[in-house]
Amino acid sequence: MNAPDPRQVTMSRFERMWAALGTIGRDPGTGGFRRYAWTAEDATLREWFAGEATVRGLDLTTDRAGNQWAWWGNPDDQPGVVLGSHLDSVPDGGAFDGPLGVVSAFAALDAMRTEGFSPGRPVGVVHFGDEEGARFGVACAGSRILTGVLDADRARALRDAAGVSMADAMARSGTDPAHVGRDDETLRRVGTFVELHIEQGCALADLGRPVAVGSAIWPHGRWRFDLLGEANHAGTTSLVDRRDPMLAFASVVLAARAAAVRHGALATCGKVTVEPNGVNAIPSQITGWLDSRGSDAERVRAVVAEITAVVDGHGGAVSEESWTGETGFEPALTARLATLLDNAPVLPTGAGHDAGILAAAGVPTAMLFVRNPTGVSHSPAEHAEHADCLAGVAALAAVTRDLAR
Amino acid sequence: MNAPDPRQVTMSRFERMWAALGTIGRDPGTGGFRRYAWTAEDATLREWFAGEATVRGLDLTTDRAGNQWAWWGNPDDQPGVVLGSHLDSVPDGGAFDGPLGVVSAFAALDAMRTEGFSPGRPVGVVHFGDEEGARFGVACAGSRILTGVLDADRARALRDAAGVSMADAMARSGTDPAHVGRDDETLRRVGTFVELHIEQGCALADLGRPVAVGSAIWPHGRWRFDLLGEANHAGTTSLVDRRDPMLAFASVVLAARAAAVRHGALATCGKVTVEPNGVNAIPSQITGWLDSRGSDAERVRAVVAEITAVVDGHGGAVSEESWTGETGFEPALTARLATLLDNAPVLPTGAGHDAGILAAAGVPTAMLFVRNPTGVSHSPAEHAEHADCLAGVAALAAVTRDLAR
Repeated sequence: MNAPDPRQVTMSRFERMWAALGTIGRDPGTGGFRRYAWTAEDATLREWFAGEATVRGLDLTTDRAGNQWAWWGNPDDQPGVVLGSHLDSVPDGGAFDGPLGVVSAFAALDAMRTEGFSPGRPVGVVHFGDEEGARFGVACAGSRILTGVLDADRARALRDAAGVSMADAMARSGTDPAHVGRDDETLRRVGTFVELHIEQGCALADLGRPVAVGSAIWPHGRWRFDLLGEANHAGTTSLVDRRDPMLAFASVVLAARAAAVRHGALATCGKVTVEPNGVNAIPSQITGWLDSRGSDAERVRAVVAEITAVVDGHGGAVSEESWTGETGFEPALTARLATLLDNAPVLPTGAGHDAGILAAAGVPTAMLFVRNPTGVSHSPAEHAEHADCLAGVAALAAVTRDLAR
Repeated sequence: MNAPDPRQVTMSRFERMWAALGTIGRDPGTGGFRRYAWTAEDATLREWFAGEATVRGLDLTTDRAGNQWAWWGNPDDQPGVVLGSHLDSVPDGGAFDGPLGVVSAFAALDAMRTEGFSPGRPVGVVHFGDEEGARFGVACAGSRILTGVLDADRARALRDAAGVSMADAMARSGTDPAHVGRDDETLRRVGTFVELHIEQGCALADLGRPVAVGSAIWPHGRWRFDLLGEANHAGTTSLVDRRDPMLAFASVVLAARAAAVRHGALATCGKVTVEPNGVNAIPSQITGWLDSRGSDAERVRAVVAEITAVVDGHGGAVSEESWTGETGFEPALTARLATLLDNAPVLPTGAGHDAGILAAAGVPTAMLFVRNPTGVSHSPAEHAEHADCLAGVAALAAVTRDLAR
């Protein structure tokens, strides 16, 4: 009887991980995932992660921000190489955004062990919580709390759409919110962090390559604009007597797109709330949000300046909800990985990631991107080919062997 | 000791009615009213109406649509003159839209009795339920069910935003939904219906008159437009690769206003829903609503045709949710009331009313409007001067004395 093909063993574990995750938080109607922080689905994802750590004999810890760490070797002896990403989703998100990085981390570890690789440094797998910020409105909340960028008091006071505070949501999930905060002990253990993520665009498809190395995260921000009107009856108020903020909102939406085209940046108005939002009621108030990003801060600032002028012209007000300047990953590390991975393309991204938060906090950090044939992201239609996922695992294993030699 | 001034007695009753109503369903934050069909607030309004009927010794009945009727005299002997309106509200509605007609009806009855008037026909006061349609989306549901315009099965199946059916809401309020439907016995009792309502515009303020007689309700309708996009990440999808329905929505909003100006009609986009409505998500789907009205059907149809072309151009679809052609009140009755009321102005209105539903069902119907100094409607800022409200009561009493002589 022949020994089992080690590659087959690895493959079957890889597929079992996907099969288990595929049942958690999936909406049967849309086929998308709804995995929000500190919910029952989130708890099931944490159980899944703990189970994967346990079957591999890894040491499981949870940091003061609720992120989970599974260690092969003792990171208190010397800082380790950490792989991983997040498991939560946007509303009706796809299967790969986040989970691909965690599943690939476990699979890369399996591959190294199957090959008999013995690391010279500890190797860890991390599951960052609440990366999408879908419930409490702050993206990368897990890594932001860990690094202290998001103050513990501010985090505890964040509220979801139903008015539940993050502190209450944590407590209901069995996590003591009093303990939450920056966690230096955990950060000291991270020598290097490598986050693998599905590409959220189609540069790799255009280049015909399965894997890229990330160079930087574009500057990006969110701005809220409040437009006031006068509540009135749609059937009895003459057009000249109206103050209808829906007209102002429409002007801002179209101006944002025009400004983005003009300045070579991205601008999106994806969210709006209307009061009272009645068919026969002229709105009394509309709040819209602008998301803008670009390859440099000046382009984004130029878009925001134009939109601010339009909103001002309608008597409204713009407020900046978040701003993150460009986050470059360590150039030497990036170059080393690109060389190691057969001169992989080096690409920037317009999306924020936990890797960006850690890089900004001074942790040597790199990213790998796996080809997305359609570029579709934050949608049930998001997809990556199986062969490309395996190429991602192989790249992650190669990078880890190099960094943890 | 002098007898109390009968006018003072009436006045104090009038003010007591307003004081009692002012506490029901008022939002302490906005100061507006939230009185929706088949809720606890609605039940309290029904108790209030029953109480007012009882203290006046009127016979109280509830019809098969849940509308309440208080009779002075027996309408089964001969059809009577009915006064009244509704008590429910839009979200954060004002104090007068609806209640002014009911309170003024009771006050007119008090004034006639104080004067010793003895009617030659029965006189009734009606409280129509669910006029605004704020909960189940169908305006004038009480009068529509009564007249059979709204089919009982369709009414029972209507659902609110939480998914509760009207049938369940009725049952929870102690009304058997199986009994609901067109009510010929009730309709036979109504010889003439006169609805007094606060003006929802400022024509009377411009004319310097306190009371007008209604001539007609403008043709009006609601259209829904669905715009599809492709869900995608706002930070990683290039502008040229996007299908963003927010841009299409903005175009429709601005086109609707331009078309309304061009055709001398009204057009409003007061309601929109966005999926998934996330700051960093290009929407996958947007549904907007168009409310359009005008002095004749051709103007409204011209607006809708233009909007349909714009929506079609964006690959979307328009569906008509409701359409009501012009409803003229009985010309002879209108003229008689205008003459009686010191040649009161005769005005059309762009708003739907229970009076319009009854008129369309063949009931001789008239409306009176009371001056609204600002024209503001469907808002906590809606207002009528006390003296104008008293002028409305006097007009309603004069009209009733004439019709029920």
